[in-house]
Amino acid sequence: ARPRVGYFYVGKTANQLFVEHVRKLKVKDYKSRPVVVTEELSVYDAICTMFLEDVGTLFVVKDGGRLAGVVSRKDLLKIALGKQDLQAIPVSVVMTRMPNIITCSQEDTLYEAASKLMRNQVDALPVVRPMEDGEGLEVVGRITKTTITKAFVELGQESVL
Amino acid sequence: ARPRVGYFYVGKTANQLFVEHVRKLKVKDYKSRPVVVTEELSVYDAICTMFLEDVGTLFVVKDGGRLAGVVSRKDLLKIALGKQDLQAIPVSVVMTRMPNIITCSQEDTLYEAASKLMRNQVDALPVVRPMEDGEGLEVVGRITKTTITKAFVELGQESVL
Repeated sequence: ARPRVGYFYVGKTANQLFVEHVRKLKVKDYKSRPVVVTEELSVYDAICTMFLEDVGTLFVVKDGGRLAGVVSRKDLLKIALGKQDLQAIPVSVVMTRMPNIITCSQEDTLYEAASKLMRNQVDALPVVRPMEDGEGLEVVGRITKTTITKAFVELGQESVL
Repeated sequence: ARPRVGYFYVGKTANQLFVEHVRKLKVKDYKSRPVVVTEELSVYDAICTMFLEDVGTLFVVKDGGRLAGVVSRKDLLKIALGKQDLQAIPVSVVMTRMPNIITCSQEDTLYEAASKLMRNQVDALPVVRPMEDGEGLEVVGRITKTTITKAFVELGQESVL
């Protein structure tokens, strides 16, 4: 058992306060701007877009913003190993497709999003909401392991409670 | 015995305890196994190694384990954009070299390592210690944004104090 010195009691233990604080952080307050591309974009241009936008994951959308796929650096590296012409292959060939995409919503906690990143071994989650016509999902942000690392650093420096 | 009701405490607030707890986590308790390759390895084989070992960063060593460079998925994607033969290019051409490598040591806190990841915009840090002959650094582990995300999830679920 851990020594119980140095903390006090106000109805809740410091530990409860601590866990509650971590779980209070919301996706909507931490999400960053999503970078979206269309299905026809070539693998070559997708890699260029990653460098220009300085992101490691692209979200692929169709008909006016409906989420269709996710492309990671890993997906692009794998295809780059082949001898194929990267300008002739569309990202739709290498992307992870709906309904296999792991997503989160604005009201989710950052803790839930981080748990999904770990459990599903992905680097990024699109933050989504239902499309206005009710069919499919619209991408409104992104949460990545960089987002979580930034939040971790804030936990170590901030006056939070 | 101290009365356990009401608000009170001697010396430290819950917030201080919280920050202290985050800063108590050590690199040595969270580091994962480093994957190392030699300078002559081709870019092609480096990409294969990343997939086989399921890592996003390789550490390049020379003469018996001395840290010489770091190669990320980003470095490899950039070179893959060219029309060159990936089997003919050694990783030493694309790696970040000493002394430009950001490192951490076993006794550092995870908070310090996470701060370095954010500040230097890198995905991974080699955990290093001085070589036995005193020249250069030996790689003994790795800390990545995945490590930090895992620690964040633990903070949200554990009884920690």
